[in-house]
Parts: sequence; C-alpha cells; structure tokens
Amino acid sequence: MIEVEFKYWSPGNSAVVATLIKLGAKRLSDLTMEDIYFSHPSRELGKTDEAVRLRKKEDGAELTYKGPRIRTGTAKAREEITVKVDDALSAQRILERLGFKEAYVVAKKRATYQLDKLRVDVDVVEDLGEFVELEVLTESPERVTSLLELAQVELDLSKLEPKTYLELLIDKKGK
Amino acid sequence: MIEVEFKYWSPGNSAVVATLIKLGAKRLSDLTMEDIYFSHPSRELGKTDEAVRLRKKEDGAELTYKGPRIRTGTAKAREEITVKVDDALSAQRILERLGFKEAYVVAKKRATYQLDKLRVDVDVVEDLGEFVELEVLTESPERVTSLLELAQVELDLSKLEPKTYLELLIDKKGK
Repeated sequence: MIEVEFKYWSPGNSAVVATLIKLGAKRLSDLTMEDIYFSHPSRELGKTDEAVRLRKKEDGAELTYKGPRIRTGTAKAREEITVKVDDALSAQRILERLGFKEAYVVAKKRATYQLDKLRVDVDVVEDLGEFVELEVLTESPERVTSLLELAQVELDLSKLEPKTYLELLIDKKGK
Repeated sequence: MIEVEFKYWSPGNSAVVATLIKLGAKRLSDLTMEDIYFSHPSRELGKTDEAVRLRKKEDGAELTYKGPRIRTGTAKAREEITVKVDDALSAQRILERLGFKEAYVVAKKRATYQLDKLRVDVDVVEDLGEFVELEVLTESPERVTSLLELAQVELDLSKLEPKTYLELLIDKKGK
C-alpha cells in the first residue's frame, strides 16, 4: 500500500474545520500523538530516507517503518508498514536494546476527517504551528492527484510543504 | 521481570500430562507456535547471546527481545521484553526492512499448565522431540529454586537441557 499525501501550512485550522463540516466531512478522531523517531548506528535512517517511528496515542501505540520517498508530481509517496503494539514502553525498550536510539520527538494534536476518499488531518504541531494534510492510501498513486487538487482549492490550501514534520523540526532546532 | 526456567527432555509427554492433572494443575492453553529468530548484520545476536524472536500463534503474534543469559545455579535467567503485535507479517516485514534476516524457525506444539506458582510447558518440537519446561516469572530468582526442584521430582524430570530449542536445532542442523 502506498500513501500519497500533500502537506500544507494551514490558512487557519478553525477556518479549515468550518469548511470541512460545511462540505459534509465526517470527523473520525481527535487525538494527541507523540511520535518518537529512532536512529540506528548501522544505518543512518535520515540519510537513506527511511524512518522508524513509534507513535503513542491515547488509544494505543503503533510501530511504523517508512521507506524512501518516491515523487509522483508534487505529491510524495512512500512505502509504509505499520503494526499496532500493545505496550509503547516495551516496544521502545526492545528498539533500544537492539541499538536504536531516540533521535527526535514530534508532538501534535490531530483532528482527522474523512472527505470522500480523502483523509484530512488538521494538525497543531508543537514548536511548528498549524498544518493540514491530505492523504490517500492507494495501490495506484497516479489516479488520485485530481481528487487531491480539488480538495486543495475547496480548503484554501496554497502553501505546500514538502518536508515532513521531522525535517521541519530538524531545520528549526538544528542537528 | 526475570524469567527463571529449567528445560528437560520429557520422560514422555503423556505421562507428564497425566501427573499434572493428578496434581491439580490447570490447563491454560494448547497452541501451535512458530518462532522465527532473526539475525542482524550490525550485531551477531547469537554471539552476544541476545535473541529477537517473532512468535506466531493461532491467537496472535508477539515480538520478543531476549537479553544475555545470567546463570543462577543450574537455572537460567535472562531479561525478556515482549510486545503483542496485531499483524505478524507486517512485523516481519518491518524487521526485514531494517536489515534483520530470518535465521531459524522453531515450530512446536505447546500445552501450558499452571501448577501453583509454576508454569509448565509440555512441548513437542519439530525435528527435536518432546520437552518439558518449568518457568517462573519473578523479581527474585533465588527464591524459586526450591519450588522448581519439587516439581522436577513429581514430574520425573531428570535430563536437564541447558540449551535453547534454537541452539539444539543449530547443533542438529549445523550452521
């Protein structure tokens, strides 16, 4: 499965949410998340454009591997493999025993909406600000671009941000 | 938490089970398990006496890290950290993307009984034969030895096997 997504600096989360509601979007969840990104001495995951992320949410934890990005137009696509784990602390300890080290933490509040086949995340990211992400999980990334572009107009999203929150945070804080 | 355990070549699993029932042991589960052990190029886990194991059972999957063994008398103790995962195949793919390689598979049928504070596993291991494991999870390993030794007499367990199934399988099949 390939995740295709656009990320935008938000024109204002409250305006975006108002438009989503007007368009009939369904609110799926409203969560506080802490994403811990790990590095490993044998392979510098930042350099290979891979990521190992442990996500802690109120309703559980999950471990995700993200593969190198593939560009498809201006959207980004990458392999993403996720497993739910029953205990975030134990998962973190296993990773640490295997040589992984906590490299960065991205903390955010995320309200997620479903709008037709799109998932829209309205995010407030600690130390970064407000963002909107449009996402489609698909086997055929080329088909969805028109759908994404339509939503972009409706939600007044113009300031595309190709970098991940992790990269933005690294840019801001320095290595 | 430290796991203290003795493993024995079984004097015959059906006799052991008959005795367990006579002693009032409670049958906890009866499962087929496939344990996949992984190696990693950056650290030869066999040499550091660590193990990364993905266990697939009918009722779910779990990922375990086992630390180097600490001998306490003739029993063995080692740190063990486990998380349940919701999808064994995805967990395996994440490990493989991170450079872990499937090294060995240990397949067994395990009937587990609770006898006082002991857990007794009655195992049939593919390519190896019948075994009985006595286990206690404890914070104070020194206290439980007498309990273990009592069970050993009751269940007619005399042929202690200090090696893991994995080691026995490696001995048998060669590297």
